[in-house]
Amino acid sequence: MTTAQTTETLLQAVESGLTVHDLGRELRVGMPQSPNHPAFWHALPRRHGDMVRADGGSAANDMITMGTHVGTHIDAFAHVSHNGRLVDGSDAFEAGRGGKFVELGAHTIKPMVRRGVLLDVPAALGIPVGCDAGYEITPADLEAAEKRQDTPVRAGDVVLVRSGWGRLFDDPDPSVYQGKSTGVPGVSEAGAVWLADKGAHAVGADTIAFERLAPGAGHTSLPAHRVLLVERGVYIIEALNLEGVAAAGVHEFLFVLSPLPLFGATGSPVRPLAVVGA
Amino acid sequence: MTTAQTTETLLQAVESGLTVHDLGRELRVGMPQSPNHPAFWHALPRRHGDMVRADGGSAANDMITMGTHVGTHIDAFAHVSHNGRLVDGSDAFEAGRGGKFVELGAHTIKPMVRRGVLLDVPAALGIPVGCDAGYEITPADLEAAEKRQDTPVRAGDVVLVRSGWGRLFDDPDPSVYQGKSTGVPGVSEAGAVWLADKGAHAVGADTIAFERLAPGAGHTSLPAHRVLLVERGVYIIEALNLEGVAAAGVHEFLFVLSPLPLFGATGSPVRPLAVVGA
Amino acid sequence: MTTAQTTETLLQAVESGLTVHDLGRELRVGMPQSPNHPAFWHALPRRHGDMVRADGGSAANDMITMGTHVGTHIDAFAHVSHNGRLVDGSDAFEAGRGGKFVELGAHTIKPMVRRGVLLDVPAALGIPVGCDAGYEITPADLEAAEKRQDTPVRAGDVVLVRSGWGRLFDDPDPSVYQGKSTGVPGVSEAGAVWLADKGAHAVGADTIAFERLAPGAGHTSLPAHRVLLVERGVYIIEALNLEGVAAAGVHEFLFVLSPLPLFGATGSPVRPLAVVGA
Amino acid sequence: MTTAQTTETLLQAVESGLTVHDLGRELRVGMPQSPNHPAFWHALPRRHGDMVRADGGSAANDMITMGTHVGTHIDAFAHVSHNGRLVDGSDAFEAGRGGKFVELGAHTIKPMVRRGVLLDVPAALGIPVGCDAGYEITPADLEAAEKRQDTPVRAGDVVLVRSGWGRLFDDPDPSVYQGKSTGVPGVSEAGAVWLADKGAHAVGADTIAFERLAPGAGHTSLPAHRVLLVERGVYIIEALNLEGVAAAGVHEFLFVLSPLPLFGATGSPVRPLAVVGA
Repeated sequence: MTTAQTTETLLQAVESGLTVHDLGRELRVGMPQSPNHPAFWHALPRRHGDMVRADGGSAANDMITMGTHVGTHIDAFAHVSHNGRLVDGSDAFEAGRGGKFVELGAHTIKPMVRRGVLLDVPAALGIPVGCDAGYEITPADLEAAEKRQDTPVRAGDVVLVRSGWGRLFDDPDPSVYQGKSTGVPGVSEAGAVWLADKGAHAVGADTIAFERLAPGAGHTSLPAHRVLLVERGVYIIEALNLEGVAAAGVHEFLFVLSPLPLFGATGSPVRPLAVVGA
Repeated sequence: MTTAQTTETLLQAVESGLTVHDLGRELRVGMPQSPNHPAFWHALPRRHGDMVRADGGSAANDMITMGTHVGTHIDAFAHVSHNGRLVDGSDAFEAGRGGKFVELGAHTIKPMVRRGVLLDVPAALGIPVGCDAGYEITPADLEAAEKRQDTPVRAGDVVLVRSGWGRLFDDPDPSVYQGKSTGVPGVSEAGAVWLADKGAHAVGADTIAFERLAPGAGHTSLPAHRVLLVERGVYIIEALNLEGVAAAGVHEFLFVLSPLPLFGATGSPVRPLAVVGA
Repeated sequence: MTTAQTTETLLQAVESGLTVHDLGRELRVGMPQSPNHPAFWHALPRRHGDMVRADGGSAANDMITMGTHVGTHIDAFAHVSHNGRLVDGSDAFEAGRGGKFVELGAHTIKPMVRRGVLLDVPAALGIPVGCDAGYEITPADLEAAEKRQDTPVRAGDVVLVRSGWGRLFDDPDPSVYQGKSTGVPGVSEAGAVWLADKGAHAVGADTIAFERLAPGAGHTSLPAHRVLLVERGVYIIEALNLEGVAAAGVHEFLFVLSPLPLFGATGSPVRPLAVVGA
Repeated sequence: MTTAQTTETLLQAVESGLTVHDLGRELRVGMPQSPNHPAFWHALPRRHGDMVRADGGSAANDMITMGTHVGTHIDAFAHVSHNGRLVDGSDAFEAGRGGKFVELGAHTIKPMVRRGVLLDVPAALGIPVGCDAGYEITPADLEAAEKRQDTPVRAGDVVLVRSGWGRLFDDPDPSVYQGKSTGVPGVSEAGAVWLADKGAHAVGADTIAFERLAPGAGHTSLPAHRVLLVERGVYIIEALNLEGVAAAGVHEFLFVLSPLPLFGATGSPVRPLAVVGA
């Protein structure tokens, strides 16, 4: 297709009607998040009626404090180092000099408009509600999902791995989703290598950490982060809401992600989209 | 097209190659923003080397404080009221009870995957660098841009109005872009009515306030906000970076915007995209 | 004494040597605090070496986010209302219009330089390590402490009630000090009335909430707050560190408290002092 | 005096009646502060009426973001380094490793209950309203004030140097008090050496920077900070309100300062007191 034809194709798709699956979690005070990051808080410094202009107009506004790895979020390559090195081989310590990661911060994550594949692992394992707490999702599991759905992963794709754990996000007790005592299902080193070998541009999960966490272990060791962020240069998206898109049976889609260009930061909250025909 | 065909069409467009124009500003400490909103600040509580795990791994993280109308951002309908009413006729004051706008907060803004049109007003006026400070962009100007480009606005579109003021965003003195003393170019009541009459779903500008501001006047009166947010139900996107997309001569595109679902907030920082063929 | 004599007396006391007991808790990320208030977070946006001036100088700085009822803190009268009224009979809702409590906010708490009395309740009860979780400290207990120490409370005093619970502040698990499941010892309605009847200007405790909390009950009912802040106009200081001053056997002292004059806020973190001869 | 006698003396002074001069500025959104530090912001996440308990009780709360060098504040020794060294000779960079200054942070500033002396320089110079913008307060000026008042500085004192600039703190335009274009009066290297030679424990000023600032120069060079914080170990208190105490003719007093024990921070907002007979 020519440039103009491609643009025209996109606009024709809009006219045909699109279904936009929202993969992001609402950002709410008290939601589950990693205790390693500043908690998300929100307030209204000004509400309507506090200050009304002569013409009857009034504006309300907000005040937010947060870490960047809150809600659904993406990790920049600056987030994780191993043996003092970032993915580009640079000195991780020097990279943060000045209080900002100029080279590999969140502002360097290019917006993604790519093919997306959802690997519905619990469906492939015959336990659609979700994998057990602490279960390690293996390369064989990922392949089983790929085959069951007939959606082979291709180089450049964004691959979202459903464990089913996302069903617990709205539990009244946020520690349930954090899963420290129970463990959390997810890929570990082998699964991360498999995803990187497939040429994934970014990967995502419906858990806080994109890792299989053993019961009681917490974040003491994060091998998938090392493989993906440090060794292979694959972005990680966490705390995705994959329940709706999985329930709709959508496994292949136009994936759109546009992280906030937070200059020098190690990540960004995001609201990724899975776009298909209506 | 069938559902499957539409999805296929989108994925074929990806394979043909896309150019993604980034319409968002980097969020940096010290950037120009409205003084009515908490300032954007960022720090790294933890840098690499601060705490290294036994296996050689280390993670850095962030701390952010901000208003929501910072950087490139979208206004939720909860943001502005007139004579005590929001766009749905509800009592603006009661709507914020509890410190959250449950009905019309930022979390209720649906992600946008729509046709987008850039109206390059200065190009249409023969002064491509940008309109004068304090200049009011009239319906006639908007029509002139529409015709010059041959991109008629259609119902449901997102319409971005370039004034050229965005060239000042990176001025070392942030008060230049704020433009309180000089005034700022933009549409006012008449232009807002024109855009609403065209059926725009959302509109955007390359200034902080979307509005034409008279020299020295500041935000004392915001008629376009009243028309769009309160009377007509049209979202407003502000502080867009439209210089690159205008320089590329791109006036029609797939517009994608996915605001953070900040529960109960009056707006969200965003990074909108204009997607065309490569 | 004349004015000059009083001043001279104070300065002579300084020369004689003073012991200053620090009754405040260090403000640390992760310390126990009420989950109803934004968490205390701290980061260094700039460390030494990040930006060095030509002359070799360098300055580091901080970024803090917090509620005001964090660490050792004082409640302003604006903090609590009952049946819609504040202590001065004003409409509690209207008092906060504009996002600030102009009349009864933290900035209206005058610095305190007063006689202070520590009532060491566990010592009087013969269990010096501390009262049981969920124990209600009664007027009889307060009187027993007063008598054992021979430090009658006088009108205008600041009265600090030790329960011994403060020994748990530094427990690695912050939920221990919060005590939601176990309950927390403290005065309740009757003790609050006793303190107010004595004419206390302010009262303090070594727990987060000043109140006796029943196991599992949390902050569902706060009768001592109602009595003291709404009905009787007595300030409340919480999360005091009373272990050191009690161990030193100091029960009567010059009490100094200088809250941050946070305009319009409902409280302030503080670092109160108990000053005695060296 | 014996220990008990000293305590008794303090309490007798309380009974005789005290006048407590408040030397701190109210912390308000929009107040003048150094742009090098995160701006002070405040909001009420919860107002009365937002959530009322079954018994009619309601609590309002706050959300604060700020740097630590905001409003009236004290500098910890961790704040400034010279040629990579802090006052104790330690490596300034390593001292901040971990994002906290464990050795010389704000939590290490002991509360001060000491003799305080106000040096009213403009009064001594015959221009009581205040020194000219950009004026350097010399050792001769400090001596002139000391003599005029007959309050010789002694080792261990806290010495507050009035320039008169504090009268501008409440100017509607906060840049007036910041004084970047006009310059700001204050001591410089010579005055700082004089104060350190006198054995001052801490020094204070009614300006943001405790420095003479040349017109247009800003904070490019801070020799008094170097002398006091790095070379001589003298604390610096800034943005004091000295107008009231000077107008009252009070030059010698009990000085009380109790900084927030912000663990690892480079300073703390404070509300210092000058206490004299009533």
